[in-house]
Amino acid sequence: MIKVYGYYPSGNSYKVELLLTRLEVAYEFIHLDLLKGESRNEDFLAMNPNGRVPLVELDGRYLAESHAILSYFAEGTDLVPDDPWERAKMWQWMCFEQYQVEPNIGTARYHITLCKRSPESIGLLLQEKKKEAQKALRTIDDHLADRPFMVSNRFTLADLSLFAYVHVTPEAGIPLTGHDNLLAWLERIRNEPRFIPMTTLDYLETQE
Amino acid sequence: MIKVYGYYPSGNSYKVELLLTRLEVAYEFIHLDLLKGESRNEDFLAMNPNGRVPLVELDGRYLAESHAILSYFAEGTDLVPDDPWERAKMWQWMCFEQYQVEPNIGTARYHITLCKRSPESIGLLLQEKKKEAQKALRTIDDHLADRPFMVSNRFTLADLSLFAYVHVTPEAGIPLTGHDNLLAWLERIRNEPRFIPMTTLDYLETQE
Repeated sequence: MIKVYGYYPSGNSYKVELLLTRLEVAYEFIHLDLLKGESRNEDFLAMNPNGRVPLVELDGRYLAESHAILSYFAEGTDLVPDDPWERAKMWQWMCFEQYQVEPNIGTARYHITLCKRSPESIGLLLQEKKKEAQKALRTIDDHLADRPFMVSNRFTLADLSLFAYVHVTPEAGIPLTGHDNLLAWLERIRNEPRFIPMTTLDYLETQE
Repeated sequence: MIKVYGYYPSGNSYKVELLLTRLEVAYEFIHLDLLKGESRNEDFLAMNPNGRVPLVELDGRYLAESHAILSYFAEGTDLVPDDPWERAKMWQWMCFEQYQVEPNIGTARYHITLCKRSPESIGLLLQEKKKEAQKALRTIDDHLADRPFMVSNRFTLADLSLFAYVHVTPEAGIPLTGHDNLLAWLERIRNEPRFIPMTTLDYLETQE
């Protein structure tokens, strides 16, 4: 059985869940509370010296980094284009996600919604993150003006990856209103087969 | 003829040059002076709305993001492992590079060496970047304790990608002394076939 070490409200962990569920691959999700340092203790660092989730355990071996995990499991499925150019464009958007979406939307959301910090206490950093997030959202919205998905005419890893943080942008204090192409694309993704919603922090708190 | 739009001292642009030279693929390098905003003007934004280099032009089409470009050209060569697990580990280290090496070493170096800012003027940001860079260097050095290259027993895209910013770490004000495994690995890479050094900013200034 594949083990996924993750943090439920983490977009990067959610990507792995979205994919494995879509592919009907059975897995056990091991929730680590990042806010309590559970990804920085000795046991976890022995599995992933980089101390980050998600991490996948498979036959006693460990694989880190959400996009490395996605491509490992999705290779050979219709979520990865066969065409070399389309495949390259898929990676282009996944790199864009890790460089311009996650560090801005994800980090702003982490401070505001997960750590419950006041926007004032992280002032300048937050302003910069929001500015960069807005640019990234505009780039995605413009790109979707004349196509249903980011790369080909169907859902690929590029869409799955971008969805994870983009759909929770309001939790970073950034409204999505006005990005109509992007909003329609989020809906298309929610209608994909075996789509599952992200497990929220609120939900977890009701379980405690 | 392939066109590479880049900035000579950029590690991300250098990755593309290292690869194309290694693969003996002919290309024209078009140097844009990022410090003069040459990647943010209308002409460039029409080619890459994201306004970043490197960008590759191929048969009138454009591909951005260094790692998407690397994998497009290297697919099917000995720089990308055939084994699915090794391929996934290659991507793991490339994702690590884009998330923890480039934003820390690359950004610190950009401010200090390329923009010639005083370390004092960027105080706290720089401290944070240096701390994260040190962690990343330690992770790489530890990983290389019992292997010659990052993934398999030979040079792959993971090594090429990491080399680009790691070898100029001293330009970010961070010495590499003490990281002996890492230093030996840098030398092994310099001895790879058709290796080319990075074109430095100093060299460009002597040409003006």
